[in-house]
Amino acid sequence: MEVNKLYQFSILNALMDGVADEGINVSTMLESGDHGLGTFKHMDGEMVVIDGIVYQMKQDGSIVVADPEMVVPFAMVTRFQPTQVSHGSLSGKDALDLHISEHLPNARNLFVAIRIDGQFEHITVRTVGKQEYPGECLVDVGKRQVVRTLSNTTGTLVGFYSPGFSQGLSVAGYHLHFLEDNRRNGGHMLDFRGGNMQISLSPITRVELELPQSNGFNSATLLADAGNIQQVEG
Amino acid sequence: MEVNKLYQFSILNALMDGVADEGINVSTMLESGDHGLGTFKHMDGEMVVIDGIVYQMKQDGSIVVADPEMVVPFAMVTRFQPTQVSHGSLSGKDALDLHISEHLPNARNLFVAIRIDGQFEHITVRTVGKQEYPGECLVDVGKRQVVRTLSNTTGTLVGFYSPGFSQGLSVAGYHLHFLEDNRRNGGHMLDFRGGNMQISLSPITRVELELPQSNGFNSATLLADAGNIQQVEG
Repeated sequence: MEVNKLYQFSILNALMDGVADEGINVSTMLESGDHGLGTFKHMDGEMVVIDGIVYQMKQDGSIVVADPEMVVPFAMVTRFQPTQVSHGSLSGKDALDLHISEHLPNARNLFVAIRIDGQFEHITVRTVGKQEYPGECLVDVGKRQVVRTLSNTTGTLVGFYSPGFSQGLSVAGYHLHFLEDNRRNGGHMLDFRGGNMQISLSPITRVELELPQSNGFNSATLLADAGNIQQVEG
Repeated sequence: MEVNKLYQFSILNALMDGVADEGINVSTMLESGDHGLGTFKHMDGEMVVIDGIVYQMKQDGSIVVADPEMVVPFAMVTRFQPTQVSHGSLSGKDALDLHISEHLPNARNLFVAIRIDGQFEHITVRTVGKQEYPGECLVDVGKRQVVRTLSNTTGTLVGFYSPGFSQGLSVAGYHLHFLEDNRRNGGHMLDFRGGNMQISLSPITRVELELPQSNGFNSATLLADAGNIQQVEG
């Protein structure tokens, strides 16, 4: 696929409604991108895609390279070719907001692919566990999430900024997954502070959205509101 | 482009916010589809694309084939290859709803490309006029729309069903533009009843969304609510 085009399978609100039984597999997903995030069948952990390698970060803290046949009910990936690279420190999402508005001033309503490599003084991540029954909604799965704060580590944050209008399709705002350089810890980023960072960005103007054809997707409501999304993905 | 993939330029909420100065041109749009709808620079009338020909249906009732260089700030098109064709009568959107749920029972949360050819006992259409000033929002442009009811005519309805979660990106529900066989009258369909119809459908699972890079798009709010969209596009 062309560089810096976002490929998305399914929509976030399908996860909100617990639609996580079926999907594409990891190897198919990798045809569309080498950078991104998502989850696995039954929401079994967090997915991060770094340099074309797909990692599964499970609730118990274990991290494995995903099998090519694993089922992916939701993913956002791109063939990342940064158009803007800079170096510095960042303290959380507000600092990232300022950084992006300075370096990509005309991308407020676009998607932005983001990669941050460097030293993290601290970073708070969560990992969700598996659905306890088919169709369990993400808010309920999220109630059993494990939150960890890592200190003085090096690693990579990978993901996207999604514009406000895409809420429900995506997570409006920042959606970033983290993995340590040593591949020992990671998860969905909740907060971070770091220095000596390389911040790589690319605006995205083309999105290819693929919708599931499953009964589960087509019988779901798919209308979760911003409050619920913020609760579990904020 | 592959058949039955939806190509969309910009999002409906950009029109709601009056973003209609810039866009792709007609000839570029036609590379992605031969069936669809949209509008022109400054919302100067309704666009319908039938069999690869782009018509501009203006507020004064005139209809012309669009110049290939004309600017398109919003469009949805597909290379239409119907997967389901049937014949019958239809009375309005509720009947169409029933028809689609019978013939495409597993497409509730997909997009559906729709074409209806036949005899219309009556059809009510509207055409919007041009923005009176740059950035005039669609609700205000719509206040000057002209509504016409045509009786006992033959023609074609072209457009899409869009799933509920796509409200704002698109018009959730039916968005169909009409053109008489004699190319004399047409517009955005508000209501219809007809018989001896050929109803052609195709579910759409792949959407390619292209976002404008303009300042106008990136400084807009793009968060119009469903009520306002219903008011002007319902």
